[in-house]
Amino acid sequence: MCELLGMSANVPTDICFSFTGFLNRGGGTGPHRDGWGIAFYEEGGYRDFRDPHPSVRSPIARLICDYPIKSHIVISHIRQANVGKVTLANTHPFTREMWGRPWCYAHNGQLSGWEALPLSFYRPVGSTDSEHAFCWLMGELRQRFPDPVDDCQRLWQTVHSLCERLRSLGVFNLLLADGQYLYTYCSTKLAHITRKAPFGEANLSDAEVLVNFAEHTTPNDVVSVVATEPLTDNESWVRMLPGELLVWHDGHIVARYLAPDAEVVSS
Amino acid sequence: MCELLGMSANVPTDICFSFTGFLNRGGGTGPHRDGWGIAFYEEGGYRDFRDPHPSVRSPIARLICDYPIKSHIVISHIRQANVGKVTLANTHPFTREMWGRPWCYAHNGQLSGWEALPLSFYRPVGSTDSEHAFCWLMGELRQRFPDPVDDCQRLWQTVHSLCERLRSLGVFNLLLADGQYLYTYCSTKLAHITRKAPFGEANLSDAEVLVNFAEHTTPNDVVSVVATEPLTDNESWVRMLPGELLVWHDGHIVARYLAPDAEVVSS
Repeated sequence: MCELLGMSANVPTDICFSFTGFLNRGGGTGPHRDGWGIAFYEEGGYRDFRDPHPSVRSPIARLICDYPIKSHIVISHIRQANVGKVTLANTHPFTREMWGRPWCYAHNGQLSGWEALPLSFYRPVGSTDSEHAFCWLMGELRQRFPDPVDDCQRLWQTVHSLCERLRSLGVFNLLLADGQYLYTYCSTKLAHITRKAPFGEANLSDAEVLVNFAEHTTPNDVVSVVATEPLTDNESWVRMLPGELLVWHDGHIVARYLAPDAEVVSS
Repeated sequence: MCELLGMSANVPTDICFSFTGFLNRGGGTGPHRDGWGIAFYEEGGYRDFRDPHPSVRSPIARLICDYPIKSHIVISHIRQANVGKVTLANTHPFTREMWGRPWCYAHNGQLSGWEALPLSFYRPVGSTDSEHAFCWLMGELRQRFPDPVDDCQRLWQTVHSLCERLRSLGVFNLLLADGQYLYTYCSTKLAHITRKAPFGEANLSDAEVLVNFAEHTTPNDVVSVVATEPLTDNESWVRMLPGELLVWHDGHIVARYLAPDAEVVSS
């Protein structure tokens, strides 16, 4: 299995602290040796860094720790391969342009019968179930919404129902972003935390690093982090429910969708 | 104006030598301070590194020099902005997926009336004439060739005629790649050199660096470099003609198309 890390913030924020713990799981404290990647949205632009080598020994990963890139939305992934060889083409996150926006996607889990998901606009470059599912999901969205919609709720409900369809094929934990919103969908494992004033200290579980966020923030900052497993051992992370989709904007949850057999609450 | 750098090779080759000279032009020996980017094709995969800051001071650019990424095809660009702000979204190279292949594009020049070029499948994320022209070009190709074609000549002739159309709108020097082929199209300025056995020494024009390629190659290696201006001062570079398209594969020119008023020669 792979691990996911995401961030949504209301001010451009670097992810160096969380990423330092996270990348140690890539061949350090964890078994995820088969590549890693991280994507940043900055001022309407997008870039990602991907490497098919263990993150703990990657000079590119070290650069990301040392060179703070400030971003509203971040998606990162470390890989333990199941479907698809260890190559650059199979390294998350994946990206496609829709509506003139760069969409970014990372998946944790494994699907059965994914080859039968029909593709339309988008086709995979590599050979993973993850990228095939991404191309299917984006194609389905594009067929239903050829242009951007004002009615976000309708779009988000569609994202949720497509995720539910993928969850029915196996394990599908997802981070997805379009540059404005971060979507996090839980099949088995995802946890989140929102940090805002009054800021306190946080201690990484996977590295001997303690940070006092009060020294690095202003009172208006809101920064939320989502990860497969909590990254700190002295804070209260909230575990997501199976079938739950959260839509994040500026560090806040702006919509929540639950599995059909649970109560749907959205704000 | 911007500057372009491309490479096609028959063995995975790093571009550290050429890139060292090239990036010095990004705010060092040249005026191209408005960002830079470099894209690599590796084993069917694709990745790019882009930074909206001067390359000569970019820690990411330094990493690319120090961390040799071996690739068959490379496309790089340093930017002196004319159309579009200095932002990540406006930083070349641009990429879009077609036929399950990552296509990569970088442009040097400036176009008039580009806003009228009709878009279909692909839409720009940023605000440059360059990315708009890329989206138009890819959309036109996709409409004519919804699937990959065996008849490469027909595809390449179409690429050439689309480039000619763009050249009619201003200055359009192009590097384009699909992971198999590198396309270089000259409107005003592009030069190339092919290095193969017996390898000799090369001396960078923009930095005090001398390399003896014989020490870094095998007798079968063929490595071609294409750049806006020759990067070395002791080798014979070939300048391309206005309206000339070269298609490169494994370091070799496999097809050549000239402007309609010149003799068309292809192999």
